[in-house]
Amino acid sequence: MTTHSATAIAHPNIAFIKYWGNSNDRLRLPVNSSISMNLDGLFAETSVEWLDHLSSDEFTLNGESQTGESLQRVAYHLEILRNRLGRQSKAKVVSANNFPTGAGIASSAAAFAALTAAGVAAAGETLSERELSTIARLGSGSAARSIPSGFVEWYAADTHEDSYAQSLFAPDYWDLVDIVAVINKGHKAVGSTAGHSSAQTSPLQAARVAEADERVARVRAAISERNFSDFAEVVELDSNLMHSVMMTSNPPLFYWEPASLRIMKLVREWRAEGLRVCYTLDAGPNVHCICVRSDAETVRSRLNKLSEVLTTLSANVGGGAQVLQQ
Amino acid sequence: MTTHSATAIAHPNIAFIKYWGNSNDRLRLPVNSSISMNLDGLFAETSVEWLDHLSSDEFTLNGESQTGESLQRVAYHLEILRNRLGRQSKAKVVSANNFPTGAGIASSAAAFAALTAAGVAAAGETLSERELSTIARLGSGSAARSIPSGFVEWYAADTHEDSYAQSLFAPDYWDLVDIVAVINKGHKAVGSTAGHSSAQTSPLQAARVAEADERVARVRAAISERNFSDFAEVVELDSNLMHSVMMTSNPPLFYWEPASLRIMKLVREWRAEGLRVCYTLDAGPNVHCICVRSDAETVRSRLNKLSEVLTTLSANVGGGAQVLQQ
Repeated sequence: MTTHSATAIAHPNIAFIKYWGNSNDRLRLPVNSSISMNLDGLFAETSVEWLDHLSSDEFTLNGESQTGESLQRVAYHLEILRNRLGRQSKAKVVSANNFPTGAGIASSAAAFAALTAAGVAAAGETLSERELSTIARLGSGSAARSIPSGFVEWYAADTHEDSYAQSLFAPDYWDLVDIVAVINKGHKAVGSTAGHSSAQTSPLQAARVAEADERVARVRAAISERNFSDFAEVVELDSNLMHSVMMTSNPPLFYWEPASLRIMKLVREWRAEGLRVCYTLDAGPNVHCICVRSDAETVRSRLNKLSEVLTTLSANVGGGAQVLQQ
Repeated sequence: MTTHSATAIAHPNIAFIKYWGNSNDRLRLPVNSSISMNLDGLFAETSVEWLDHLSSDEFTLNGESQTGESLQRVAYHLEILRNRLGRQSKAKVVSANNFPTGAGIASSAAAFAALTAAGVAAAGETLSERELSTIARLGSGSAARSIPSGFVEWYAADTHEDSYAQSLFAPDYWDLVDIVAVINKGHKAVGSTAGHSSAQTSPLQAARVAEADERVARVRAAISERNFSDFAEVVELDSNLMHSVMMTSNPPLFYWEPASLRIMKLVREWRAEGLRVCYTLDAGPNVHCICVRSDAETVRSRLNKLSEVLTTLSANVGGGAQVLQQ
């Protein structure tokens, strides 16, 4: 008897050049290319079981059976998988994250990458990494980047097939560490999907996008040369550009908290002192402090001493989405 | 015997549509038009005495004899006045502000407006308000706006003669109050003059400038109609746009402090509750909370309860620069 189940894990990723705004909201085609690294140690683990007798898709997240929007978003993605795989049956999906949901640690990226990888494997199929990346993208844009391994570039393109992510460098190419200063575990006020639609209401979005390719090239080169000082300058600029767009959208989106700003300023001071660390923030208040491994303990220890920091999470560069052997 | 001295006062102003970046740094011709209100109660009081026997200009600020850059900037402005007025003599300048210097309350605007008005009067001359505004602009761009009364528009233009400010509405046209939440009395890290030169290094400056005329028109209309809700939306957007440019300049300029961001967020919450208040920040960390007079006491009392707020300054809409009668 053939089993129709599989389990996959995928890591969240932190973008160095950000994804913010789509040229096509339904297909989640981004207005600009982006670059990220996967976060080792943090992951979504997702099992998919295609079951002929089920009358509707089922989704359990972190031990809780999901309904409403959360279920619908997964069911919509399962429908995409059914169409691609030529299957009729519904699925039972069980997923768990080992990191807090919705606090700027792109949980949906890991979730939809793992769901895609597990759903395909559970059907006994093998698809190219490129195609897996495009399918994951349909569930959550940045999930495209959680399919390949290590340092990843996701290409902006006009068609579904051409907007995929691929690995630029393996995880061990450069020993960067992301130390996430968690200052607010609450769920973010405006989710990324809604935020992407508002990007075009900012008078600054076009200018952010216009030079994005140049910033992508600069970060790619900085990683290639392991040049931390160039890397830091572009990564912080790109984060500031995205948050500038957010804060000047209509209505404005302020993901930064006072504590975020304090940590951003401290990180700049620490770098001026000689520590190789820079900051970047996604659509949430937590500050991702990207540093080289030899400075990671110092950075983490300084962050943990700040009264605003609830906790820190630390992640090396992670691999790609993986189907676990049964 | 003719006296060759005069004293003038001028108020600082707070911009609703910001001045940030010049098309000509030497002439301080701004890249975009701006709108402000003068701040009654806060002022620079400046005496100028043209003295034939002086071998060089002298400048005393807040009781302290000035040397170096501070003196040079005043001497440079006196030279402009000498050229215009056909005088040779040097001057003794004594000035004092009744508000803290260099903490985001545009002290140079009041200073150069008062210096211009006093210098011209001390020479026994009378110039048009328009010309006084252009001359004040040469000392400090925003000083152009401290010459006329009340709500003021300063025009961007290609020539010295055409870039002047004029009153849109008298002070009593709309009973707005600026409550300044002072969170840091220290001198700002990067002065406005240096900051203006860096504006063009931001990838966002062109986009900010491109729609500035539209925002000027919206604020002018909102004041004309006393429409606080329209006013608040544009004023906060414009402040966010300027700080977006600052934070994405090379090197980035962060005038916001964590406390600034906290107050900005609170102001938005208070407005959502029904208080007619909005925020704007100049090149400093202090938050200017612009409100209608009937809500001013509530806003001030709430601000004073915040641990980050050292003190509050409160100002109604002020008049123009004035020569005091001897």
